[in-house]
Amino acid sequence: MSEVVHTLAGDFVAEKSLCIYFAGSIRAGRDDVPTYAKLINKLKDYGKVLTEHVGDYHLSVGGQSFLSDKFIHDRDLYWLRNSQVLVAEVTTPSLGVGYEIAYANIWRIPVITLYKRGEKSVSAMISGSEGCRHFEYENVEEAYHIIEIEMVKLGYEAHHES
Amino acid sequence: MSEVVHTLAGDFVAEKSLCIYFAGSIRAGRDDVPTYAKLINKLKDYGKVLTEHVGDYHLSVGGQSFLSDKFIHDRDLYWLRNSQVLVAEVTTPSLGVGYEIAYANIWRIPVITLYKRGEKSVSAMISGSEGCRHFEYENVEEAYHIIEIEMVKLGYEAHHES
Repeated sequence: MSEVVHTLAGDFVAEKSLCIYFAGSIRAGRDDVPTYAKLINKLKDYGKVLTEHVGDYHLSVGGQSFLSDKFIHDRDLYWLRNSQVLVAEVTTPSLGVGYEIAYANIWRIPVITLYKRGEKSVSAMISGSEGCRHFEYENVEEAYHIIEIEMVKLGYEAHHES
Repeated sequence: MSEVVHTLAGDFVAEKSLCIYFAGSIRAGRDDVPTYAKLINKLKDYGKVLTEHVGDYHLSVGGQSFLSDKFIHDRDLYWLRNSQVLVAEVTTPSLGVGYEIAYANIWRIPVITLYKRGEKSVSAMISGSEGCRHFEYENVEEAYHIIEIEMVKLGYEAHHES
């Protein structure tokens, strides 16, 4: 039943709906996958989430080992380049997520970063970046609420038809 | 005795020696600080390491809490922009390090990434990036050797006078 896309299909470029890039840790640890899945589900109310596999429970820290690292890198940057919003869950520190946020900043793609309040602090490169709309949240309902408010500010409406 | 610089002194811009940006995890975890300190010491044979504080044992995961996150972000990108090489130790996953690597790639600053071989894998956004000279190492001596070889390839000589 998985409809998770792993290839550079490219058909989404003709997609009329909003394209959203969701970023979360893969190889750095999958502890927050349940949250990623919920946030992705929420974001699907607004448009197409190009990176649904990030919230897929079957995807281990090994990542998509059937694909080369260069393929994954180039595909992910291509997807990001074709997105109108990047939403990143940044509680589990991840090199890839930091890398993607920087590219989004440079490409002037709006970035929403969500950090689950805890004992640690998020990187200053995220919380101190003017390119990031950075928020801490306590629970997933609060994260949903932040998404709703920020998406309205960016001019995007929920369709509730995903 | 600490000569660690935390401010935007700016005098290094007139620096004639090679400026090296060393990146390692701060808020994501300080487990690898002993390695960072050794690598920074090695790099000082080649020029000025602008981010010596990353290898400072006194700097906790709290980071430089007397500075604002925006100050740290802007200072670090300013230092990176004025460096000729980025050397990143990427074993502990870090949002900030990933972010800095992406900026270095975009600014065409050569990037050497060093990953201590272990059970996990580094992010595909690093190992799959054409902008990164990515290496795995077993021990710090092997990391030194990689630095020596890559610095020669980049045209930089050791002075052994730090």
